[in-house]
Amino acid sequence: MATVSFPSKGWVRDVGPIEGITPVVWHPDNPPPDGPLDVVVAPYVGAAACIASVDKVPGVRLVQLLTAGFDGIFERVPDRIAIANAAGVHDDSTAELALAMILASQRGIPDFVRAQERGVWLRPGFLPSLADRRVLVLGYGGVGRAIVARLLPFRARVSVVATTARDGDDLVKRVRGMDELDRLLKKSEVVILAVPLNDTTRGLADDAFLSKLPDNALVVNIARGPVLDTVAALHHTDRLRFALDVTDPEPLPPEHPLWQAPGVLITPHVGGPSTAFRPRAVEMLREQLGRIGRGEAPDHIVRPAAP
Amino acid sequence: MATVSFPSKGWVRDVGPIEGITPVVWHPDNPPPDGPLDVVVAPYVGAAACIASVDKVPGVRLVQLLTAGFDGIFERVPDRIAIANAAGVHDDSTAELALAMILASQRGIPDFVRAQERGVWLRPGFLPSLADRRVLVLGYGGVGRAIVARLLPFRARVSVVATTARDGDDLVKRVRGMDELDRLLKKSEVVILAVPLNDTTRGLADDAFLSKLPDNALVVNIARGPVLDTVAALHHTDRLRFALDVTDPEPLPPEHPLWQAPGVLITPHVGGPSTAFRPRAVEMLREQLGRIGRGEAPDHIVRPAAP
Repeated sequence: MATVSFPSKGWVRDVGPIEGITPVVWHPDNPPPDGPLDVVVAPYVGAAACIASVDKVPGVRLVQLLTAGFDGIFERVPDRIAIANAAGVHDDSTAELALAMILASQRGIPDFVRAQERGVWLRPGFLPSLADRRVLVLGYGGVGRAIVARLLPFRARVSVVATTARDGDDLVKRVRGMDELDRLLKKSEVVILAVPLNDTTRGLADDAFLSKLPDNALVVNIARGPVLDTVAALHHTDRLRFALDVTDPEPLPPEHPLWQAPGVLITPHVGGPSTAFRPRAVEMLREQLGRIGRGEAPDHIVRPAAP
Repeated sequence: MATVSFPSKGWVRDVGPIEGITPVVWHPDNPPPDGPLDVVVAPYVGAAACIASVDKVPGVRLVQLLTAGFDGIFERVPDRIAIANAAGVHDDSTAELALAMILASQRGIPDFVRAQERGVWLRPGFLPSLADRRVLVLGYGGVGRAIVARLLPFRARVSVVATTARDGDDLVKRVRGMDELDRLLKKSEVVILAVPLNDTTRGLADDAFLSKLPDNALVVNIARGPVLDTVAALHHTDRLRFALDVTDPEPLPPEHPLWQAPGVLITPHVGGPSTAFRPRAVEMLREQLGRIGRGEAPDHIVRPAAP
C-alpha cells in the first residue's frame, strides 16, 4: 500500500478509493502528519509557498503538482523526491481562456463593456476578425496543441513554433523551429505565448521580439508573466495590443502602468481555474495513483529523484 | 450584358470585371440613375431604409442584399423584383462573435475589464468553462452550423434544434425538431439564438422559454433583437445571464434598463461587420454576378419575382 496525502477532504472524496492507495488529508501549510507518506499531492494554489515542508515528512518519494507549470518548485523540494506535474489537466481550460482573450480583443469586447457602463451604443466600424488572421502559436505542448485545435475552425492561418522543428500532426503540417521565429513574427497578426517558463523562455518576448511584429498585432500571454518583458511591452502599447492572463509582477499592483495602457486586456491568471479543472484533475489523479497503487512507475515526471 | 449597380466605387473595384456584367455606381439613397439597371446591389448598412427607391429604376429584376437577414425588405421592394440575400457571407464573422460573447461571459471578461479600470486583480474563484457545458444552438442554417463547428473543439456538449428534425451531418449526429425544444431547454447551460427573424421566431425566447432554463444559464442572441422578448429577459436577469449582439429596440436607448442589468453583456450589432465581411462579400458577388453574366439563374433567392 502507498500512503498518499491530499490537500483537503474534498480531493479524497472526489478521487475516491483506489486499489493499493491509502489516502490521508494533509495540506503542506499545516504541521507534518504523524506517520510517513509516499506521495504528496500539492495544493493547486500556492504550492511553491508551502511545498518545502515535505522535507519534514519521512518517506516521501513523489510530489504530485496540480499545476502544469513548476517554476519555483524544484529548488524547494529535496532532490531525493521526484516531482510530477498535472500535464494535460489545464489544457482545455487554458486554451479556452486564450481564445476568449483573442476573440474579445479582436472583436472589441472591452470597449463594448466600457460603453455599456455608460449606456452607449458604439459604432466601431469593421473590427479585425480572427478569421483570415496570421496567428503564431509559440510552444506546442498540451496547451499549444489545445489552442491550435480551437483556432482552426475560425479559419485563422495558424503557424506553430517549438524549440526544434519537426513534422506536424493531425492539426498542423509542420512544427517550425526557433530559427524561423524572426521570419514568422514579421507577418504575425496574433502571437500566443504558450511556452513553459525556464531559462530559455524568460524574457523571450523582449523589445527585439516585439519590434518585429507588424503594427496592431495582438500579443497574448497565457504562459507565465516573465515570458513577456513587461517594460518592453509598455514601450510597444502605442502600436501593438496585448491580452495578458499572466503578468510580471503578479499580482499586478494597483498603480502599475499596464492596467491603464491602451489596447491592453488583463485577466488575473485565470487560465487554469475554471470548472474544467476539477474533473480533469480528478481523472489525472485516479490514473496516476492507480499506476502507483499497482506498483508501476508514475507518469508526468518533470524531475526524477536524484539517484 | 447585364447592368449591375454597386453602392460605391469601392465595390466595383473590389469585385473587378466580370464577363457579361456592366458595373455602374448607384447608392439607393441617391436619385435614380439615368439608364435602366438589371441588378441592384443594396448597401450593407441601411438597405431597408433606402431600397424602396428601386421602384423608380426601370428594368430591375433582382435586388442583391449584402446581409443574411432580410426583415423589412420584402414589403419595400415591388414584387416584380426578386430578392437575394448574402447567404454564407456573414457565417464566419457572426459565429466568431457568438463564440467571443460566450467565452467572454463564461470566463468573466466583462468583470475583469471593469476591474482593470480600477487597477484591481480579482480573485474570482472557479468560473464556468465552456468545456463540459450543455450548449443548445437554435437554428441550423449557415450561422448555426458555423457556430457548431467552432464549439466542438471546446468539448462542449452541443445539441441543435431546427424547424424540423432531420439526420445530422459531419458536425452533429442529429438535428432535433422544435417538438424537443422544451426538453432540451431544461438542461441547457448555454442557448444560442441563431434563427432568422420571421413570424415564427418573433418572441420565440419569451417568458415560458426562459423559465425552462436552469439557473445561471447563458442566453446568447446573435440573430435579431425581437427573437428574444426584452421584457421577459429583464424579468430573468436575477437568475439567467445574457449575451446580446442584437436588441429590441435597436439601437438600445441610453436609459434602457438592459444596459445596467446584472449578468448582461451587450455588443452593438457587430456580428456581421468585421474584416471577415468584405472578402466574403466580394467572393459571393463574383460568383453571383458570374452566373448572371452567363445568363444562368441567380443563387440565394429569398423571394422570387412574382410571375
